[in-house]
Amino acid sequence: MPPAELFGGVEDDTRAAIMQATYDALCEHGYANLTIQRIADEFPKSKSLLYHHYDGKDDLLLDFLDFLLTRLEEQAPPGECTGDADTLEAILERIVPPAPPNDRLEFLRAITELRAQATHDPAYREHFTRSDAFFRNRFRQLLERAVDDGAVADIDTAATATVLVTVTNGSMLEAVTTEGYDPGIHREALESVLEAHLLPGSDGAPTDANR
Amino acid sequence: MPPAELFGGVEDDTRAAIMQATYDALCEHGYANLTIQRIADEFPKSKSLLYHHYDGKDDLLLDFLDFLLTRLEEQAPPGECTGDADTLEAILERIVPPAPPNDRLEFLRAITELRAQATHDPAYREHFTRSDAFFRNRFRQLLERAVDDGAVADIDTAATATVLVTVTNGSMLEAVTTEGYDPGIHREALESVLEAHLLPGSDGAPTDANR
Repeated sequence: MPPAELFGGVEDDTRAAIMQATYDALCEHGYANLTIQRIADEFPKSKSLLYHHYDGKDDLLLDFLDFLLTRLEEQAPPGECTGDADTLEAILERIVPPAPPNDRLEFLRAITELRAQATHDPAYREHFTRSDAFFRNRFRQLLERAVDDGAVADIDTAATATVLVTVTNGSMLEAVTTEGYDPGIHREALESVLEAHLLPGSDGAPTDANR
Repeated sequence: MPPAELFGGVEDDTRAAIMQATYDALCEHGYANLTIQRIADEFPKSKSLLYHHYDGKDDLLLDFLDFLLTRLEEQAPPGECTGDADTLEAILERIVPPAPPNDRLEFLRAITELRAQATHDPAYREHFTRSDAFFRNRFRQLLERAVDDGAVADIDTAATATVLVTVTNGSMLEAVTTEGYDPGIHREALESVLEAHLLPGSDGAPTDANR
């Protein structure tokens, strides 16, 4: 079962069911072994609907990626970021999740395979360009809020957000393509590097941190 | 043509020719469309040799990856790292190359596709585990030398090397899976984040930098 936040509250039942079937089939079979038929096998409604709607598995998968990203874009308005003493912790939590559960790992594996399609398929490349830009923007908004609140030093938020997205992409890739990947070690390492940069006063221009 | 440093000086001519044919076919066709036949098409010697040696395209590709990594392991002994004022620059050059030429991009695309195989194939996973460990170790040796020379602050070199490998993996992934990837912007961003951490005195414990 996919995490509830991915498919909950979608008004169009059929669309939600197609997206959920795609998620399930993708986690089960991975990209290479996925077929429209295998997605249809997970789909409780009329199979012909799937064939009617989509021009093949990539067409469906691109719609699936768009669905997920659009929901992320809609769900977390930047106004709701709260800067507090735990901001660095909260940012790290997003970049290197403490210990992804197994079903989340399966999904990350599939997303990594989809991203690899972007090396030769412009439609996937367009999606991941948009997706990276979205996360860069989100990190930046989060950092700006934290700088305003004095929880983070007065840094170059755009540059830092760019690096953070790159670290996120690299961590995700390592988590699903290497043995013995330890998120704890990676997180501590990142914390040690970022603390010098992010904590108030670390940029050589101390801010009013303890108000 | 592959970069000269990849295949030059290999004593076994046949092996070098197989590796070069694999490189050429991989850059031309990518992983998904690669077949042993297409590698054989690039191979000037007896085709049956290829079929005799290898159990399929993945067997050959894994040998190819091992060949490249083994050469890297042999070629750059850590004793040759030189710490000087340009160390930060030299490290950045390795992580985010200024502007990869087109043939290098083709190779990076193919490597990214191979790495995606590691999501479901343990043999590829083993390779990329070894490869990440190699680069972590190399970065660490480079940083240790730079710390000893006073060119870099007295940092946690293991933690920093871990983050640098993650940034390298993330940068490579973004370079070949997004549109308009600008290594200049990414490099400046990384420089801005790392400077706070790497430059002498930036960790709040100034070292004897100018000896």
